[in-house]
Parts: sequence; C-alpha cells; structure tokens
Amino acid sequence: MAQHPVQPTTPARVAPAPAAVFDWIDRRTELRRRAGLTRHLRPRPADEPVLDLAGNDYLGLVRHPRVVRAATEAVARWGGGATGSRLVTGTTQLHQELEEELAAFCGFEAALVFSSGYTANLAALTALTGPGTLIVFDAYNHASLVDGCRLSRAKVTQVPHREPGAVRTALTEHGGGRALVVTDSVFSVDGDAAPLTELAPACRAHGAALLVDDAHGLGVVGDGGSGALSAADLAGSPDVVATVTLSKSLGSQGGAVLGPRRVIRHLTETARTFIFDTGLAPASVGAALGALRLLREEPERAARAREVARRLSTGLAATGLDASVPDAAVVSVRAPSPEAAVAWARACREAGVAVGCFRPPSTPDRHSRLRLTARGDLTDNQIEQAVAVVARCAPPSDTDD
Amino acid sequence: MAQHPVQPTTPARVAPAPAAVFDWIDRRTELRRRAGLTRHLRPRPADEPVLDLAGNDYLGLVRHPRVVRAATEAVARWGGGATGSRLVTGTTQLHQELEEELAAFCGFEAALVFSSGYTANLAALTALTGPGTLIVFDAYNHASLVDGCRLSRAKVTQVPHREPGAVRTALTEHGGGRALVVTDSVFSVDGDAAPLTELAPACRAHGAALLVDDAHGLGVVGDGGSGALSAADLAGSPDVVATVTLSKSLGSQGGAVLGPRRVIRHLTETARTFIFDTGLAPASVGAALGALRLLREEPERAARAREVARRLSTGLAATGLDASVPDAAVVSVRAPSPEAAVAWARACREAGVAVGCFRPPSTPDRHSRLRLTARGDLTDNQIEQAVAVVARCAPPSDTDD
Repeated sequence: MAQHPVQPTTPARVAPAPAAVFDWIDRRTELRRRAGLTRHLRPRPADEPVLDLAGNDYLGLVRHPRVVRAATEAVARWGGGATGSRLVTGTTQLHQELEEELAAFCGFEAALVFSSGYTANLAALTALTGPGTLIVFDAYNHASLVDGCRLSRAKVTQVPHREPGAVRTALTEHGGGRALVVTDSVFSVDGDAAPLTELAPACRAHGAALLVDDAHGLGVVGDGGSGALSAADLAGSPDVVATVTLSKSLGSQGGAVLGPRRVIRHLTETARTFIFDTGLAPASVGAALGALRLLREEPERAARAREVARRLSTGLAATGLDASVPDAAVVSVRAPSPEAAVAWARACREAGVAVGCFRPPSTPDRHSRLRLTARGDLTDNQIEQAVAVVARCAPPSDTDD
Repeated sequence: MAQHPVQPTTPARVAPAPAAVFDWIDRRTELRRRAGLTRHLRPRPADEPVLDLAGNDYLGLVRHPRVVRAATEAVARWGGGATGSRLVTGTTQLHQELEEELAAFCGFEAALVFSSGYTANLAALTALTGPGTLIVFDAYNHASLVDGCRLSRAKVTQVPHREPGAVRTALTEHGGGRALVVTDSVFSVDGDAAPLTELAPACRAHGAALLVDDAHGLGVVGDGGSGALSAADLAGSPDVVATVTLSKSLGSQGGAVLGPRRVIRHLTETARTFIFDTGLAPASVGAALGALRLLREEPERAARAREVARRLSTGLAATGLDASVPDAAVVSVRAPSPEAAVAWARACREAGVAVGCFRPPSTPDRHSRLRLTARGDLTDNQIEQAVAVVARCAPPSDTDD
C-alpha cells in the first residue's frame, strides 16, 4: 500500500454525517410499506386466549409436562448454556444421548446436533460439496438451503418444483462428477411432499448423494413420526443425508444432521457452523430428548397430526377456499394479495384463531397465503372452529388471482 | 429440456455404488489425520473434577442459581421452544424484555435476539450490505463474519489485523460509496482488542458504517461489563452496529444485534437468518435475562474477569511461556505444532486443568495455541494452580517456531 499517493484520511468527496449513514434504510422501509410487505414483531403473552394454528408445534408438545420437566432437569444439572463450541466444552453427555436416540429413532447410523435447523443445513451443504460439485436444487427449498448453496461455492442448478425428470436431466448433463441433490421432504409453505422415491433412484443412476431437509416430516410423517426418509425406506442408506429441526414436532430448539457415520464425523471435523458456534443449550437438548421419548411411547401422535391436517384441508375446501392438500401437518390457503392476507390473518386472530400469514419473500411463488398448522392435539371441535373462522374471515373471492 | 437427446436415466459413465458415494470423505479424513488435525467430540459429564479454563463462561454464571432459576421459570411459563419464527409465533414478551434490557445495558437504542451469535452476524452482514457495498474486513475476524461476507455478495477487502491505516486506505480507494468496516472487538483466539477509537473516525471520514462483534467484550470490557462499544464511547452512535452473544458472559445461548432503531427494524424485516429461523428457546432467553440482571447488580464481576486474565498472563509469562497480553478475559499460549498443542492440552486435563486447544483452521495465522479463559469466579489459588499446571505440562521450548 506504500505506493499509494492518496492521503488516506482525506476522502474523495464530502462524507455523509454519521446520522445519515443509514438513511438508505428508511428508503427501503418505505418501499416495503408501499408494497404491503411491512412486517411487525408481535410479542405474545404466555397465555393467549386464541387457538394457535400458526406455530410449528405439530404434536402440541411444547408445553407438555414431560417436555417441560426434561428441560428443567437439564438446566438444573448442566446450567443455562453449553459454555463453548461443541469441540471445546460444548458437548455434554446429554448432547450425546440426544444424538444417539435421534439417529436410532429416524433409522440413521449417526446424528449431529446444531443450535438451529438453519445452521444444520448450512453445515450439510458446505461440508458435502465443494467448487467441483453440482448441487441440484428444488426451486421451493427452504431459505436456509438456499444460503447453504451460496456458502458452498458449488455449482447450483435449480430445477422446477417436484420434477424428478429435471433432476435426472441435470445429473446427466453433469456427466458423473460429484453431485448432491437437495430437497425439502415436506415443503414449508404448502406442506406438499417431495417425490423421494423417484429422486433416490435418479441419484443412484448417477452416483449422486441425496440431501433431504425433513424439518416438517420428523414427528409427523412415517411410522410413529420417524420421518419422511424412514417412510420412503431411505433412512440409513449410505448415500442419503437428512437434516431435521428440534423446534417443530419436538417442541424445543435446534437442528440435526443425520447420516452415515463417516458423514457425521466429517461434519464434526469440518463444518464451520458446527466448529464455530456455541453448542445447543442443555435445556433445549433436554426438551428435545423428552419429546422424542414421549413420541416413542405414543407413536399415534404422528398419525393424529396428519389426520387433523386432512380434516382442516377438506373442511376449508368445502367452503370454497383454495386450500392445499396436505402430505404432512401443514395446510395453506391462497390469498389474493399480501394486503388481503394480512387483513385475513388479523380478522382470524380477532375471532380467536391464530394462523400464519406468508408473504413474499417467504413464499416461493410470490403468492401470499395463510398457513395453518394441524396440531395433533386439536380436538374435533377446535378443527371445526378453525375452519369456520378462516372461512368467515375470508376476503371476497378473486378467482383471477 | 425436450431437445436433449440423452436418455435421462442412463448416465454417461458407470455410477459408483451407493456405498461408494461418500468414499471421498475417507480420503479427506486420512489427510487431516496425517496433518495432526483430527478432532474428536468429548462428551463431558455434569460434574467433572477439573478446573475449567476452556469454556467461554467468563463470569462463571452458567450454573449460578439465579441463572438456573430464570431459565427454569421461563420453561415453566413458556414451554420448551418458541414454536415458530420470530415474525410468526416465536416472539414472546420475554424476548422483548431481553431485547429492551440488553439494548439499555449496552447503551444502544434497540436490540434483536437471534438463536446464535453466528446467525446474528450473518444477519448484520447480509442486511447492512449489498452488491455495491464495500466491506473492509480485519483478517482475524471470526468465522461467522467471514461467512456473512460470503453470503452478502458485497465486495470484501481484507486488511491486516488491527491496522486502521489499511482501513483508511481501503475506504479512500472505494471513493465514498456505501461501506461497512467490520471487526471483532476482542479477537477470539488471542484476546487482543480492536483499535475501535481509531476505526470510528476513519469510518466517519468516509461515511462508512462500523460493525463490531462484541462477543468477547460483553460482560468483560467496559463499565460493569457493558461492552467494548460502551468503553470506546461508541455505543448508541447512529453509524455503529454491534453484535453480541448470550452464550459467553451471560451463560446461555443465542446472539443479538444492537444498533439504531431503524437498523434493528430493517433487520427484523429483511434478515434471512432472522425471518427463516425459529426464535430462541424461552429457557435461553430467561437464562440470559437472569445473568444480565445479576451483572447489573454486581458490576464488579467484569473487572474481576479482566484481573484474573492479567494474572494468568503474567504468571504464564513469568514461567517463560509465550502468553498473550489480554485486553479482555482470553489468554492464549503459543504451541510449537498442532500435535504438541493437543498433547499439551491433554496433559493439562490429566493434571486437573481443562484448557482450549486451537489448531488450524480455528487459528487465523496457522499457529496452534492453548486458549485459557479467565473466569471471573476463579480464586487466587485456582489461578496459581492453572499457571503451575500449564507450565509444568509445556512441551520443550521451541524458540524458532
């Protein structure tokens, strides 16, 4: 830098005042407001007099006494945090227990727990690919998988949503080099399922690995909630890796990668979001373990969540609404516009039913929707109430949307 | 795709068997083993008969009865998880309390809590930059900041460690466009401090924003542990943003971004790791809040952590070891090689003192080290014990390292 003749402390033009440095943010905020895309945090009280169909507590376990007790016992025994990254001090014997039981439950050789599903997905994508790898990517995959692709430096080919033919074409064009096919098992917005039983043979025909984000499948899909990979008879395959969250069916926080033992070991040693992040807090490890053990004892909880979803969907469709046909515990209903979705969700809440409101950029196709979670602990009366309220609060129909 | 003559299910060459798809991983594992860089998880029991100088529990609060009680009460009241992303159902009134108290404690207008410091850093870097922004980046910054740069799509200029002159040159060359200067406040491996009081005027001369990762400063540096930004009289500035972790001094899990209200609002509405991640678990929110309140009542805990660090450093240096001079609560000691560092740390543990062992890629300069955490709750006897054990277990000196 010595050869630079410029006097370093003299800027080329007058710098904005410190108070003006973030003025550009106000302009962006105004643009979002005009597009109907303003978002607000709504801090909720502990006991709200509404029926919650907005969260991802698919099995209704988040406040189950056994989950609460497991979290409490973990805090008492291990403290408020893991104290360090997993390779230094952040792995307790409780983390190990959860990893072993989760792997066994889902039918995989091994598991590795992360502080979130987000960081688990970043880990899987970055550690299993490299500059020479082709990633074949469903267009509707979750944002964390998109970010994982960006971090991976691999070549990414996006294929249309749920089209195994396009996956095969992309792999064929790649010509047999290292490749990873990446898909959600259950897509988060509409709750539709990936064609896993077609994707797996396509991968095998080309020597590609398959990475499946089973965040919305664990606890809901498969025998006793063992997940979409188990349901497709792919769990434990030497060429298949799954990611899950602990924050949905298991009523806790965190994520995990499941796969062959050598893959898990490789992640332990190389995944940046594993190495450079503090371990999951003991309370969350405990809560997830408590929920997992409960689900093992009461496997019917998974089927009930799916049943509730089907009844919500058919009930809503019977009122003329454009409801998705659920493959798991998520049902979405199309709204004519972002503004209409917000108003609809607000009206539902005022009528006692909380539903999710998904607008761009949280929807893959730019269509806004209500999103209903079919909690497995809903009663028949609550299902009827939810359908009635959502239908009654619906905006005027707009079939040309 | 119709124009493709290739039969999609017929690969161009014979695909590897499913069991061979991850064979490349075994080759990588072998390379790491030969380089002395194999890493193992060591699940720890709840009550280990060792003096822990390896974790980041700088104030010794992780098992403090008030922190444990705050976490337990949060679980009882709110359940095992936040149930959804922050903008859907994942914001409780407890999250809001923590954000308000944390912002006030550190001297900022507003705060936003994330599930980890990692995701907080990804959020700040991606939401505050864009393809036209210049990021000026200290070469020793934390891995999560590196990944944030990669995700940001901004132009990144890496500058030598702690060189404000190089920062000024980079900003001058950029010519006044949008720019963000990014630095750790206390660097994680050696515990040395960033020259914040020189960086801030350099930013202001060029209209650049300053982003500081105060993960290792919060609770240790500044008046009563209010952090490095407060100590440098930069907290609350309209052009300064900080990130912190809840998993170190505050004995919990999670991270936060602190800054002007409009910056926090912008993150709430646009940061992907905020929008698409489940909210921090109530237990972790509660634990962090409990620790924060305790620190407010007992501000002398911060000064004690710094005092312990100085005494560890001078004690180690007096035995002839190459110990860093601490600006916060981290002391590192150079090791001659990765293998020597591993053997040294193992010998310390066998002698009753757990220390961190940092090897590439966790060290920015490829030198391996022991890393000691100066917990504020260590007694004088424990400090002496730690110094004696580390010195006694040291490998033969290698001054030509």
